Amino acid sequence: MDIFCDKLKEECGVIGIFQEDINSISRRLCFGLVALQHRGQESAGISVINEGKTKYYKDMGLVQEVFDDTILDKLEGTIGVGHVRYSTTGDSLCENAQPLVVNMKNTSISLAHNGNLINATELRDELYDHGSLFQTSIDSEVIANLIAVNYEGDMPKAVSKSIARVKGSFALVIGTNDMLIGLRDPFGLRPLVLGKLEGEGYVFASETCALDVIGAEFVRNVEKGEMVIVTEKGVESIFYDESQKKRLCSFEYVYFARPDSDIDEVNVFMARERAGRILANESPVEGDMVIAVPDSGIAAAIGYAKESGIPYGTGLIKNKYLGRTFIKPDQKSRELAVRLKLNVLKENIKDKRVILIDDSIVRGTTSKKIVTMLRNAGAKEVHVRVSSPPVMYSCYFGIDTPSRKALVGAEKEIQDICDMIGADSLAYISIDGLKKSIGCGENLCMACFDGDYPMEVPKKSNKFVFEKN
Amino acid sequence: MDIFCDKLKEECGVIGIFQEDINSISRRLCFGLVALQHRGQESAGISVINEGKTKYYKDMGLVQEVFDDTILDKLEGTIGVGHVRYSTTGDSLCENAQPLVVNMKNTSISLAHNGNLINATELRDELYDHGSLFQTSIDSEVIANLIAVNYEGDMPKAVSKSIARVKGSFALVIGTNDMLIGLRDPFGLRPLVLGKLEGEGYVFASETCALDVIGAEFVRNVEKGEMVIVTEKGVESIFYDESQKKRLCSFEYVYFARPDSDIDEVNVFMARERAGRILANESPVEGDMVIAVPDSGIAAAIGYAKESGIPYGTGLIKNKYLGRTFIKPDQKSRELAVRLKLNVLKENIKDKRVILIDDSIVRGTTSKKIVTMLRNAGAKEVHVRVSSPPVMYSCYFGIDTPSRKALVGAEKEIQDICDMIGADSLAYISIDGLKKSIGCGENLCMACFDGDYPMEVPKKSNKFVFEKN
Amino acid sequence: MDIFCDKLKEECGVIGIFQEDINSISRRLCFGLVALQHRGQESAGISVINEGKTKYYKDMGLVQEVFDDTILDKLEGTIGVGHVRYSTTGDSLCENAQPLVVNMKNTSISLAHNGNLINATELRDELYDHGSLFQTSIDSEVIANLIAVNYEGDMPKAVSKSIARVKGSFALVIGTNDMLIGLRDPFGLRPLVLGKLEGEGYVFASETCALDVIGAEFVRNVEKGEMVIVTEKGVESIFYDESQKKRLCSFEYVYFARPDSDIDEVNVFMARERAGRILANESPVEGDMVIAVPDSGIAAAIGYAKESGIPYGTGLIKNKYLGRTFIKPDQKSRELAVRLKLNVLKENIKDKRVILIDDSIVRGTTSKKIVTMLRNAGAKEVHVRVSSPPVMYSCYFGIDTPSRKALVGAEKEIQDICDMIGADSLAYISIDGLKKSIGCGENLCMACFDGDYPMEVPKKSNKFVFEKN
Amino acid sequence: MDIFCDKLKEECGVIGIFQEDINSISRRLCFGLVALQHRGQESAGISVINEGKTKYYKDMGLVQEVFDDTILDKLEGTIGVGHVRYSTTGDSLCENAQPLVVNMKNTSISLAHNGNLINATELRDELYDHGSLFQTSIDSEVIANLIAVNYEGDMPKAVSKSIARVKGSFALVIGTNDMLIGLRDPFGLRPLVLGKLEGEGYVFASETCALDVIGAEFVRNVEKGEMVIVTEKGVESIFYDESQKKRLCSFEYVYFARPDSDIDEVNVFMARERAGRILANESPVEGDMVIAVPDSGIAAAIGYAKESGIPYGTGLIKNKYLGRTFIKPDQKSRELAVRLKLNVLKENIKDKRVILIDDSIVRGTTSKKIVTMLRNAGAKEVHVRVSSPPVMYSCYFGIDTPSRKALVGAEKEIQDICDMIGADSLAYISIDGLKKSIGCGENLCMACFDGDYPMEVPKKSNKFVFEKN
Repeated sequence: MDIFCDKLKEECGVIGIFQEDINSISRRLCFGLVALQHRGQESAGISVINEGKTKYYKDMGLVQEVFDDTILDKLEGTIGVGHVRYSTTGDSLCENAQPLVVNMKNTSISLAHNGNLINATELRDELYDHGSLFQTSIDSEVIANLIAVNYEGDMPKAVSKSIARVKGSFALVIGTNDMLIGLRDPFGLRPLVLGKLEGEGYVFASETCALDVIGAEFVRNVEKGEMVIVTEKGVESIFYDESQKKRLCSFEYVYFARPDSDIDEVNVFMARERAGRILANESPVEGDMVIAVPDSGIAAAIGYAKESGIPYGTGLIKNKYLGRTFIKPDQKSRELAVRLKLNVLKENIKDKRVILIDDSIVRGTTSKKIVTMLRNAGAKEVHVRVSSPPVMYSCYFGIDTPSRKALVGAEKEIQDICDMIGADSLAYISIDGLKKSIGCGENLCMACFDGDYPMEVPKKSNKFVFEKN
Repeated sequence: MDIFCDKLKEECGVIGIFQEDINSISRRLCFGLVALQHRGQESAGISVINEGKTKYYKDMGLVQEVFDDTILDKLEGTIGVGHVRYSTTGDSLCENAQPLVVNMKNTSISLAHNGNLINATELRDELYDHGSLFQTSIDSEVIANLIAVNYEGDMPKAVSKSIARVKGSFALVIGTNDMLIGLRDPFGLRPLVLGKLEGEGYVFASETCALDVIGAEFVRNVEKGEMVIVTEKGVESIFYDESQKKRLCSFEYVYFARPDSDIDEVNVFMARERAGRILANESPVEGDMVIAVPDSGIAAAIGYAKESGIPYGTGLIKNKYLGRTFIKPDQKSRELAVRLKLNVLKENIKDKRVILIDDSIVRGTTSKKIVTMLRNAGAKEVHVRVSSPPVMYSCYFGIDTPSRKALVGAEKEIQDICDMIGADSLAYISIDGLKKSIGCGENLCMACFDGDYPMEVPKKSNKFVFEKN
Repeated sequence: MDIFCDKLKEECGVIGIFQEDINSISRRLCFGLVALQHRGQESAGISVINEGKTKYYKDMGLVQEVFDDTILDKLEGTIGVGHVRYSTTGDSLCENAQPLVVNMKNTSISLAHNGNLINATELRDELYDHGSLFQTSIDSEVIANLIAVNYEGDMPKAVSKSIARVKGSFALVIGTNDMLIGLRDPFGLRPLVLGKLEGEGYVFASETCALDVIGAEFVRNVEKGEMVIVTEKGVESIFYDESQKKRLCSFEYVYFARPDSDIDEVNVFMARERAGRILANESPVEGDMVIAVPDSGIAAAIGYAKESGIPYGTGLIKNKYLGRTFIKPDQKSRELAVRLKLNVLKENIKDKRVILIDDSIVRGTTSKKIVTMLRNAGAKEVHVRVSSPPVMYSCYFGIDTPSRKALVGAEKEIQDICDMIGADSLAYISIDGLKKSIGCGENLCMACFDGDYPMEVPKKSNKFVFEKN
Repeated sequence: MDIFCDKLKEECGVIGIFQEDINSISRRLCFGLVALQHRGQESAGISVINEGKTKYYKDMGLVQEVFDDTILDKLEGTIGVGHVRYSTTGDSLCENAQPLVVNMKNTSISLAHNGNLINATELRDELYDHGSLFQTSIDSEVIANLIAVNYEGDMPKAVSKSIARVKGSFALVIGTNDMLIGLRDPFGLRPLVLGKLEGEGYVFASETCALDVIGAEFVRNVEKGEMVIVTEKGVESIFYDESQKKRLCSFEYVYFARPDSDIDEVNVFMARERAGRILANESPVEGDMVIAVPDSGIAAAIGYAKESGIPYGTGLIKNKYLGRTFIKPDQKSRELAVRLKLNVLKENIKDKRVILIDDSIVRGTTSKKIVTMLRNAGAKEVHVRVSSPPVMYSCYFGIDTPSRKALVGAEKEIQDICDMIGADSLAYISIDGLKKSIGCGENLCMACFDGDYPMEVPKKSNKFVFEKN
């Protein structure tokens, strides 16, 4: 567990490019992955295909730690796939890094997956019975094996047939010897967009911010249940499953996505700012200054400040050089460790009634430390306002949720949480308020807040398999 | 040159600890250096002294890249010195990393230096004549050799005698076998504070933020021309030179120091916010939103917004995973490279008259790219306001200033700069305004703005030796 | 190409251990691999199985570069498989390192292979049609996929059925959740022995020298067409194919195996010494001293000296610190490069008629340099005697032979080779002589000398697929 | 301690080159260091001077681990100095790697030292009093500081004056901005030769084998008490101290030097072979085969065999891939560890009376293991003959001798040693026999055998400072 951060974690970011120039593709993929780095900081990988030859490179670490000019120079191609990964399981192994590159008859496929399959175990068993092998513990290998079994020369057909067997969430980018495929699960749980390079190619990416850094123009979202196929002839679309209602993950707006991205054409920053405004109306409180838990609470804090008329200010300063892993603090310093990441701006806090905006509370441990820091700095009152509802249910679709026992929202009443973190008052935005802020009402998956899963999830007995300890 | 950043760069951050417990010192030094990381990202080092035995470890890289638990476990001691360095010269070599550790008669000294000597060449020549050797190209070795020559068993005396020969800026922390010394040059150009650990020791650090992360209480500033000596007997103070007026570097407030630090008891964030307010009064403009160049412009932007009544908003999103060095963009992507670091929040900018607050402009190249990005995102007007005066003169005291030819403020009129960067209007805070914002009037060095150096600086002919190309 | 060495190269060394103690297995595997290091210096890997859980570690480099105590401490198990690899193809990639670890229904298998399949392409195509995937370019993955397809709960049966489909050479060690299997192809082309640990387990290894370093006692060879299965119940043997005559690779005695190993119960050093004696009888020459090309020519040189009565001496000194890869010599130094590896003992050579014994000549380039060195050192005459016949045919069974064009023995008459390398006389041992020296007559594969392959090999048109350029 | 090797260890190897071509110098230095690698495997370094600019690179590890093409390409110059080091003290630190590069007035000097100063502590104290600093714990820094103190523009004069103060052994190579100096101590304890590059420059090196790999011709030895200075004008010689008799270290012939080197014009291999012959005459024994402890015992074994008429054979095979450091064997494997390095050729040993030739015995631990291995392999008798006398006294001149308590030759009678190692008989060559084998009688230092040191050595009380534990 990241001792500095009490947030849910995204599993992955994906990107794919189809273009003519073989030289620029690896840097474009790499720049795109840097833009998507917030979606996964554990491993990074790029695969490129050049005239039927596939090369790839992947390793543990941030994009900039994994790649350098020497490596990128060797990765020439017209079709490319990239991936950043945050591991939700204990298997932080290099062989689990993506894209997964496998050979089939007459083609290789490079597969990048964002999401989680809930019937992976059953499918793996079926595939074992068929005589398939597994070399990794990632879901992508299940998908790749299904494709191999179903492949008879027509890749989109093989992908459709395979995907029909799969349950769960997925935004997939698949590169073959002559095509680039982007697809989203029938509920559209994970985001994927299509962009156009200046007159010469196409890009798939998890978020629009990846289009911006490579100068690509947003074309449209890949839709739920849609497979978009880019070949030399152009872009083709197949709706392989239209039976389901759209259920985009609402947490993309709450925390995962970058504020400058549009997810399904709703800008993330603006959604967060609206959530802050709604929160101000739902749970007003008197105070002298609205401050954010940086950086993810800033947009909502600005919204809350605007709506309430209470000035927005800065109360916490974040150390921008702090990496993901670090030395273990000695016993004495343990309680100070959070200050490595966040420090209080004492002079601005002193004697003030502070309204602290956080985007979410998962375990509550960090909130407690921040409230204590603010009080020690002289804050007269600390009112915590959270721009998402209490997280009460585990996610089965690619988000690293702790077990319910660790979810403070599932285990405690709000007043008890307030007492635990030592705040003067605590309020969360309502479920309706969050929906309104995003503005696409019933098309969202809010299962982590309300338990209404878009599909049947594993029964309780099995469920803990998917939970973290 | 960092292609993502058009800022002046600090040379170094220093820390020193004197305590009883030998186990916790290396982690405390390390945490302190993480807090000071913004002052130097090129190399990091720690030296510890335990019962007359000195061990040290230093390498190129960020603090967290250089140190791990295995290394820190070996660094036990009761006296410790730490350093982070940003190289202003081309010699980015490991042997130039600090602290410099040297052996003298009956003691070793570990020396960490923030600042720049302007008579280093002359002193080095004198020392050569004496028969002294040099193994590095850092000023600290000049100081160490002076101390060795003057040392006759009384370290504070040797340090005083040596420092009397030195011209330039320096905040020094020196660890010996039985004492920890902190001192500041006669002008107090570089900052240094003294803190107290919970009942059991003392800390020197460049900024108060380093005290916060190790739970130390601020005691007082080390004063200009003062040497503070910590031994087992306690804290002693020697004012070795009281002939000069204080001239603290004003750029500490403008850009270098962390906003949560107090520099000579003035909080940096609050000074920046006041500068924003003053700027709003000096150079008002009509607009729909005040935005900052993140992160250094945020405090002034909030101040400008408050004073002007124009709402504060977010227009630019910074990628928090972008490291210092990176792959070279291909020709096509070069102009997009700035977007790796900064992206526009289009929906928030569109059709708005934007007031963009930056803390300083050095070359102007990045400003131009940001204004272009804002316009491309649909901003109706872009008014640039800078919370420091034009940088017109080179610094000789430890700041990495480009040559005057590259300083846009020295070479062009303000209107020409405005045209160059493509803004609708451009204004800088006045020199008096900046002084007022900091609030310690004549005690500041503002030579980079007004050319009024606190001491005679090398003549023009020699000057380019110190300038970067 | 290794610029210092003109020898054929073995592809691999394998080891497997079945024992009770989970702690010592990784070090034993590691020590065994160090003993087998001469069979492959490109990558090394170890896989261990502990109560149904498989862990592995493999990387490019020598055994001692790949493994350290930290890694070995984590590799606990009762069943273990190890591998060292020399790549005969261009794919010196980490994903091609072995053991190959794959998951099947209810078990994983760890597979280490020494040899080469000549119908791998056909099998791969069949498996593609079945829907199998390939993630590497090594033959072991073909075998693993065959096993997966044939596996119905009985591993020995699945292995038998799979192996029946395979053509080529193989000594295989396979670890599953509860058994360790060692097997050899129907011709016994590659060696494999079974050893017994002191009262508590069993070992398979390519050579007996690996048994010695872990204190295991030699039990017997695994026979051609035999599969030996070690489980908790003990050792079981299945002869899965008895249709073929034994054809052990004769080059194991000529160059590959370590002199202290017994290969199929014939000691390698003694066989080489006998070859030297036979060579002395077949091709006597007057001379003052018999010297060896170290180290591989020493045994035959001693034999030649004994038989001829001409004293054995040392004429060439080998640098024992020279690694496999090295800096590129500048143009001037290129011709001196061989001296980095070998230097002449001038005083011992001067004015002498030298008989130089080499174990084999492949391209002839190094021989020429050595003869020149000896002449420059003052040798009056240089007579070259080679303790294996001319290499004239490519190997299809796991040895890295250059294309026939590069095989000097295939392209030139012996007198022409003698002229080319600048020797006074040149002679090779006869094919019969080599057979006699090994002493197991018709049970040897001597195809690289006589073209009599033990099975049909790819037709000429396909053949170059297997050849190096 | 190296668990695989019971030998005394040399401290260092040095090389220096003066030439016109700036490109080839780094590779030549590097090749020379590879040839000298046996003299020190802990660290390697190269310094080059090009038109008054000095660059260097040094690190822990073998030459080939430290250097690659990228690094060598950057090291251009006309004067260069190289060094390999084996640390006799615990300070295996990178800052102790050589060459030591320091700046003095108007020049830098690069200093590579082979040897040991016995008055370093006194000199360091004097230099402290002068105000000199020390940054390392190597003797070379004492010499460099002396030179700096004595330097008044004439480097050879400064070196002479400095060297006059120094007691101990030294072969030094010093590169300045315009000259290359090679010198040897007044006793000539450590070797140094001068070579000539093909028509264009000069080389100093510890051994002639380094000349061979770079195609340099041997010119002559640097003599005891001589300083040879190479400048653009040519080669100049100064005999700075002719008061002493020559006392070259005899252990260079016994073990340190490469067999293909000539040390003071006596070939090492031939000297060792002669020692074997003399040993055969002094201590004959009946036997069936003479075998060597490889590699260092081979020459003497060949000599012994020739003289005795008993055939020379191979009984022990050495693993040529075993590096210096390695994983720790578990308890069970500890006694097997020596087999990682050496294995018995059982078939050749069985039922034979073996005469085992070793070049020296220091602690006796390895000898015992080898004798046991031979007996276990079936040897009927094992007679050990050692081609150097018992090591009884510590060396103060650069050789890593253990404390006397650990020197089995100092602590036990020969018969007791014989019993301890389990041999049937044991004999050492006589002191006179060794002298005769080398052939330069009284010009040798044999202090480790007879205690007759060439100069006064530290009294017993101080002595243990120099001893290892």
